Amino acid sequence: MTAGSNGRIRVAIVGATGNTGGELVRLLLGHRHVELVTLVGHAKAGQPITSVLPSLAGLVPGDVRAFDADAIANEADAVFCGLPHGASAPIVAALRARSKVVFDLSADFRLRSDEEHVRWYGERHAAELAPSAVYGLPELHRDAIRGADLIAVPGCYPTASILPLAPLLARDWIEPGPIVIDAKSGVSGAGRAPSERTHFAETAESFRAYKIAGTHRHTPAIEQKLGCAAGHAVQVCFTPHLVPMTRGILASAYVRPRDGIDDRQCVESARAFYEGSPSVFVHEPGACPDTLWVRGSNRAHLSYTLDRRTGWMLVQGAIDNLVKGAAGQAVQCFNVRYGLPEGEALAMPAAWP
Amino acid sequence: MTAGSNGRIRVAIVGATGNTGGELVRLLLGHRHVELVTLVGHAKAGQPITSVLPSLAGLVPGDVRAFDADAIANEADAVFCGLPHGASAPIVAALRARSKVVFDLSADFRLRSDEEHVRWYGERHAAELAPSAVYGLPELHRDAIRGADLIAVPGCYPTASILPLAPLLARDWIEPGPIVIDAKSGVSGAGRAPSERTHFAETAESFRAYKIAGTHRHTPAIEQKLGCAAGHAVQVCFTPHLVPMTRGILASAYVRPRDGIDDRQCVESARAFYEGSPSVFVHEPGACPDTLWVRGSNRAHLSYTLDRRTGWMLVQGAIDNLVKGAAGQAVQCFNVRYGLPEGEALAMPAAWP
Amino acid sequence: MTAGSNGRIRVAIVGATGNTGGELVRLLLGHRHVELVTLVGHAKAGQPITSVLPSLAGLVPGDVRAFDADAIANEADAVFCGLPHGASAPIVAALRARSKVVFDLSADFRLRSDEEHVRWYGERHAAELAPSAVYGLPELHRDAIRGADLIAVPGCYPTASILPLAPLLARDWIEPGPIVIDAKSGVSGAGRAPSERTHFAETAESFRAYKIAGTHRHTPAIEQKLGCAAGHAVQVCFTPHLVPMTRGILASAYVRPRDGIDDRQCVESARAFYEGSPSVFVHEPGACPDTLWVRGSNRAHLSYTLDRRTGWMLVQGAIDNLVKGAAGQAVQCFNVRYGLPEGEALAMPAAWP
Amino acid sequence: MTAGSNGRIRVAIVGATGNTGGELVRLLLGHRHVELVTLVGHAKAGQPITSVLPSLAGLVPGDVRAFDADAIANEADAVFCGLPHGASAPIVAALRARSKVVFDLSADFRLRSDEEHVRWYGERHAAELAPSAVYGLPELHRDAIRGADLIAVPGCYPTASILPLAPLLARDWIEPGPIVIDAKSGVSGAGRAPSERTHFAETAESFRAYKIAGTHRHTPAIEQKLGCAAGHAVQVCFTPHLVPMTRGILASAYVRPRDGIDDRQCVESARAFYEGSPSVFVHEPGACPDTLWVRGSNRAHLSYTLDRRTGWMLVQGAIDNLVKGAAGQAVQCFNVRYGLPEGEALAMPAAWP
Repeated sequence: MTAGSNGRIRVAIVGATGNTGGELVRLLLGHRHVELVTLVGHAKAGQPITSVLPSLAGLVPGDVRAFDADAIANEADAVFCGLPHGASAPIVAALRARSKVVFDLSADFRLRSDEEHVRWYGERHAAELAPSAVYGLPELHRDAIRGADLIAVPGCYPTASILPLAPLLARDWIEPGPIVIDAKSGVSGAGRAPSERTHFAETAESFRAYKIAGTHRHTPAIEQKLGCAAGHAVQVCFTPHLVPMTRGILASAYVRPRDGIDDRQCVESARAFYEGSPSVFVHEPGACPDTLWVRGSNRAHLSYTLDRRTGWMLVQGAIDNLVKGAAGQAVQCFNVRYGLPEGEALAMPAAWP
Repeated sequence: MTAGSNGRIRVAIVGATGNTGGELVRLLLGHRHVELVTLVGHAKAGQPITSVLPSLAGLVPGDVRAFDADAIANEADAVFCGLPHGASAPIVAALRARSKVVFDLSADFRLRSDEEHVRWYGERHAAELAPSAVYGLPELHRDAIRGADLIAVPGCYPTASILPLAPLLARDWIEPGPIVIDAKSGVSGAGRAPSERTHFAETAESFRAYKIAGTHRHTPAIEQKLGCAAGHAVQVCFTPHLVPMTRGILASAYVRPRDGIDDRQCVESARAFYEGSPSVFVHEPGACPDTLWVRGSNRAHLSYTLDRRTGWMLVQGAIDNLVKGAAGQAVQCFNVRYGLPEGEALAMPAAWP
Repeated sequence: MTAGSNGRIRVAIVGATGNTGGELVRLLLGHRHVELVTLVGHAKAGQPITSVLPSLAGLVPGDVRAFDADAIANEADAVFCGLPHGASAPIVAALRARSKVVFDLSADFRLRSDEEHVRWYGERHAAELAPSAVYGLPELHRDAIRGADLIAVPGCYPTASILPLAPLLARDWIEPGPIVIDAKSGVSGAGRAPSERTHFAETAESFRAYKIAGTHRHTPAIEQKLGCAAGHAVQVCFTPHLVPMTRGILASAYVRPRDGIDDRQCVESARAFYEGSPSVFVHEPGACPDTLWVRGSNRAHLSYTLDRRTGWMLVQGAIDNLVKGAAGQAVQCFNVRYGLPEGEALAMPAAWP
Repeated sequence: MTAGSNGRIRVAIVGATGNTGGELVRLLLGHRHVELVTLVGHAKAGQPITSVLPSLAGLVPGDVRAFDADAIANEADAVFCGLPHGASAPIVAALRARSKVVFDLSADFRLRSDEEHVRWYGERHAAELAPSAVYGLPELHRDAIRGADLIAVPGCYPTASILPLAPLLARDWIEPGPIVIDAKSGVSGAGRAPSERTHFAETAESFRAYKIAGTHRHTPAIEQKLGCAAGHAVQVCFTPHLVPMTRGILASAYVRPRDGIDDRQCVESARAFYEGSPSVFVHEPGACPDTLWVRGSNRAHLSYTLDRRTGWMLVQGAIDNLVKGAAGQAVQCFNVRYGLPEGEALAMPAAWP
């Protein structure tokens, strides 16, 4: 592990001016083993950081810089990339070519299969790196992350969906068949670029689904990871909705447990599964996790409740999409990768209310 | 039809100071065949109407009055009751004993079976009236409403859930088995009484389920009416959520259509089913109805989209919970009952945005 | 008055696809003396109306049309123009050249002085029409509107600011000196075009001023009209703020009343001033008008409260910026212009909550 | 300084189950020199902490405890009291009698003058302690706090109002006369107890003033402290408003600077005044501080902009009412009192967006 003069790991953020980038800065400023050396942006390069992210006024001097692989390679040991898919792969390739450890928050290296990547995202860039990428969900892949130099940090919906379902699939406790996941996200997940759909006036006092019927690009990552956990292919009918709030995801999965499996067993199984995972909390049956309980924190709240009348079990996961669903998870991966306490810089509970 | 001196039907509202009552006033003030003769409240009796509902300042003089069955019988031809369940039945009984036509927005006369009523709501009051009550969903029961003197106006969740599902069940197009309904409601549905759960600070930036696993009291009415449409018993796994917005319900049902049934057929079937129903609009497959598109209006937007990968069909209904889910629907029943155009006083489109 | 075959006035809306245009459609659909003949847009011409304004699904068939002065002249008697300033003047000129009665919701004809127009808005187009334009605030200019063929409908901030202050200035009850107006607006006032400032995630949970220190373009119209009322020049220090809500403006003015003038007198004076004005309601001293009390309605709530400790009087006006601050006011002008009841199509109270 | 076995200062929180109490827990859990020994509540004593504050699930075991002065005295060195005014004084007295260092977030010891306290709050309890209480605004009273054992932590409105105005008054740069302060607060400032005014449905899409014309109880504290800064009595016309957001206060003061004083000088003066104050940031003239820029942080953003046309200067302060306006400020006082770095546990920037 290369480190700064003060023994800290030198970190750069590429794509620092978006929602995820800003959140990375917020978390890494409080990280005792990190020295934040440079913030890189594209459209806003050259502007003072604090004009782009005014919450940093008085805290972070300097300008947003344009991307320069050699300069970053010289200054930083590890790089977080918070870029859109497609834009990320070439940047990641340039950084990996310079032996930097990369935490990529885009979709570019999340899917194993090239074919599947092409189907959902179009052309695959830097495909040669994909086999070395580890899916950065520490609760499932802690060991692999420890040895990885390219970590593909999961998206928000997959994190909220996979965490509650994986323990059940790992035990083969769910009847076969496509799983219904009805997921609800705050608006910050749509990114910072303005659009009619994210205009306040068309979003407040509005609730709607979008990208329904299996068209949302997070679908294949959810299926890939649930399939890993299950040991066989898993299909999901994934329906995202936009909630008039800024942060938070609640994923509600409806599954039919196998005969004799009830919610109490699921809760205990999930607690065992996530033993030693500081970011996961499993509620008692009947609880209704609330996105407000995790807002601003790196925590995932899970729940399992059986509807005894109908035999359906409601399985829920609540996270902050920008933290456990993006920036916080990336920092968690960083901690695991560098052998630091997994919760370093991530311990603060939610800002409630 | 008894009428006021000006040929208008004289109307009283009991429970006028809640969210539903206020909405009834708003709609009925614009009704050309209605003379609003008295507004009755309980806790706020004696207060000026405009101190309780300041949006009426300058428009509605006088005080909120206490309930007096004889006085109302003398002044009004028809009565809308917007009271909590349990409180409504004795009031309705007193008004029916005086031959008033009653539009009851409580749950007291919605369930046919006494046994089921007792199971979900406790003791049944005025049970002798239940057989004469007609379920006030005009799209399903228009004829029965025409001849009824006691109309049990449906709740918000049942309206949003039943409207999109009934056409499919009526044709037996859904595979048997309990139906998953994942419903999301704005906060006004919780009523006007303050509580921690509806405190702004604990609701904004929050998304959560509540009364899960078949415990919400709207469940039996949904099952009763879907069973009627299907011609056999139907079970639903109903999960309500609270959305940080004031008005609107989106109900998302996940069903497995029978072999050979696709979303295009469902759309056409629903359009035929609701032919002549001015409040219902059926979208093309792939559309995502938005609660903002119906806010403040008496309209229901329905949609049907098949996920061909998984075979699940997403069936959605969007309404304004206070209008098509309560006050507007009651006015619609009133129009049907009195032989007026069904859309009278209900024609205004949503206030968008 | 030319009229449609059914005796109705034929109306076209140019700029029908924005927030104001949509609101005009909503109100005019319920107008008994209006036949809505065409909806014109620019960027969205050719699209189905209901794909642009889905709240009209099932209610308004047809496509958004491109602007064609001759076609409009042929079909319509009166035209509402809801275009941005600068874009409006040539359209208005073309319509006036064809003798159409025009209700212009832009700023292009609000300011009398060419010099002032140029200072705040740049080049003045169709300046020759300005002298014939009447400022469409019916409460102040009812008679002039009756005889006008070009009505410049006021903006939202001026309406909320001028209505409460005019009665005091008309009586010379305020000490001289620049008046502080601290105004707060919902986000719909910023228009429908997306921008970072109106992105939900940067607006919810945010409160901020903008265009401070006399830079907001509504300033000169406020000063012009207050000057008219006072009979001498009036200066205002106008500070707008963005409130995380969709609709509503609250303007708070701080004035020093002349010796011996108290809030009771101001209330009575305002009530006398607005006698016969159906859209204005004046509260008792001490009241705090709430934007929610007027949401969706064409009403203005005014209040006057003296802080006896400090001698400052708080003067407030609350309106819905899209209704009394734009579309509703335009319809009110239309009613006045055509000799119809001033409140036609505008009687519905606020949708509360 | 007495300390726990691990060298940490042992801290109790009384009134831990409200908004402020919850925020104290959030901040103190991350404080390296604090051991949080007990959380005390009244109505919720005996309940698991995590059922009252579910954001602490998995982080803070144990139950809310009832108040017991001896038990606290035994376990804790310092106590934060987040109780309503009136309820706090006897608790504080009991703790001071046991020599505990107390950080009181109520109004009970903020006002120096008994007479003024009685006028605004009614009977004064434990009045004998008032002379020893130090007003806990570290930027103004850092030295006094160092030596104090009873710190009266300021309220949210005074913090947001005093910080920007004090530097100008200290230099006598403002023309005499009552100062207009138009302040806007998020809803969490109203506390956790439910009420109609804080019901989501009556607050969202609503903007209104309340307790106007010098009736808000924060008025005398603002005047007291501004008077201290000025060296003579200062009057304010203080108007609070409720913003439909959870956190944040923006206070806008309108002042007339003395001849020759412009905003640039004010900015520089404020920067000099707050030199060495880690929580204060002073923007350039023309900036519009946004509550979102400080949400969740202990920072205060100040701004000064002169309207040259009218001679009014807009002076603004933006804070998070629960952090710099309450819990964070209390922790800041704690740090100063115990000789720790002033920003300990308070360094994290705002959670944006």
